[in-house]
Amino acid sequence: MMHNETVDTLLNRRSIRKFKPEPLDDSIIATLETVAQHAASSQFLNDWSAIRVSDPTVKRKLAEFGHQPYIADAPLLYVFVLDEHRNAAIAAAKGVDTHADAFTLTGSYRFTQAQNDAAFALHAMETAAYSLGLGCVILGSILNDVDGLIEVLHLPEYTYPLLGLAIGKPDQEPALKPRMPRSMQFFENAYPADDATVLEPLAEFDDEVHQYYDLRNTDRPVDAFSDQIAKNAVADMTGRTVGEPASRQGFRLDR
Amino acid sequence: MMHNETVDTLLNRRSIRKFKPEPLDDSIIATLETVAQHAASSQFLNDWSAIRVSDPTVKRKLAEFGHQPYIADAPLLYVFVLDEHRNAAIAAAKGVDTHADAFTLTGSYRFTQAQNDAAFALHAMETAAYSLGLGCVILGSILNDVDGLIEVLHLPEYTYPLLGLAIGKPDQEPALKPRMPRSMQFFENAYPADDATVLEPLAEFDDEVHQYYDLRNTDRPVDAFSDQIAKNAVADMTGRTVGEPASRQGFRLDR
Repeated sequence: MMHNETVDTLLNRRSIRKFKPEPLDDSIIATLETVAQHAASSQFLNDWSAIRVSDPTVKRKLAEFGHQPYIADAPLLYVFVLDEHRNAAIAAAKGVDTHADAFTLTGSYRFTQAQNDAAFALHAMETAAYSLGLGCVILGSILNDVDGLIEVLHLPEYTYPLLGLAIGKPDQEPALKPRMPRSMQFFENAYPADDATVLEPLAEFDDEVHQYYDLRNTDRPVDAFSDQIAKNAVADMTGRTVGEPASRQGFRLDR
Repeated sequence: MMHNETVDTLLNRRSIRKFKPEPLDDSIIATLETVAQHAASSQFLNDWSAIRVSDPTVKRKLAEFGHQPYIADAPLLYVFVLDEHRNAAIAAAKGVDTHADAFTLTGSYRFTQAQNDAAFALHAMETAAYSLGLGCVILGSILNDVDGLIEVLHLPEYTYPLLGLAIGKPDQEPALKPRMPRSMQFFENAYPADDATVLEPLAEFDDEVHQYYDLRNTDRPVDAFSDQIAKNAVADMTGRTVGEPASRQGFRLDR
């Protein structure tokens, strides 16, 4: 293993869900946002945006959507958005009929492409925040109510919310979460044909995860990894369907 | 703007497409892979994997898919993969019927969730690589032939390729690509109702982009941003459809 400031920042990342009630100054915000903009963008489309959520009413809404009160207290809060709306407006100004069938900004590939770019930008911001001594938590929970989120943030046609990101000075010190053995996640030249080979170190990893205490639930260790996965595999995810709300935003994930 | 090693690494990122023909040693590989594993994972699902492609025949295949010969020469090459296959095997071992209707590992939300996690992992690896003096290029081009990619990497049911990542010691020094004014990409509390406000600084950005010379095409400056976007908006992306190949891999993006 090699070490430097960046590698160590990435290795020590853990989600922070409790922040000191101090606002972050403009030079920090400028740094985080500029760093996000420098992440890779496929075909230079720059097909994402981010909404900085500072209005306490909007913050409370997001906390409600996510059933997580701490969202409302985040000193700095973003919702990253897949954005083909801006590019559609640019193309329309150049004479492109953005509602024609041939229009490709709204198909499944563009959606995933924009999603990747938005994710890179969010991750760049997250990494920069940690390097500046801040802490973050990525918020999938706000997607409990995609329609509500779209409404409250006025997300127009050809946009779709990716995830939230809450940032602030950490007011908690969670333990580093265990990671699975590398051999379970990195393969050479092909995906192994035999699941048993991949899962060989699973029992040990299960034990390691079961030693870990989550600050959200400090009275008992978390479930073994296998038990968490089995539980998740039968969880009802229908409320988080993407295809239908995405189609209301103008995307056609079937093509 | 604030500066430190990590922030500067992120600000100076540019795609590197020509590498010195030197292999990277095992400690670098271990560092990059371990860093990728420490990226955030939604609900701790760890639902991605990566294939390290070292076999020259497989590398050449990927270069063919992408129509980019330099892919075959990358000292270190990965394909990141959305992976619910491993979790399905784990859940099956715990008695879950992974082909039942209630099984949720294969719906549109899980797909996007796994995609985000895989993108975070890839971006963490990319960032660590730059911090170690290496260069990278993210490879969307290999998705020209998703079926071929799935075949050559033996990607099983419930997996789907995200993107490739080529890494090595840089043998070129491309200029930093311009980024759009922050006001075009970051908004306060809501997406602006008026496109004209968002696009107000576009002409200036168009000029700036048009000054930039791409190393892939050094005889003329690149098109203005607006012109690139208008061209992309009518590009034929049907060959890159995600829904259909994803359904052959067992995903149901319609639910």
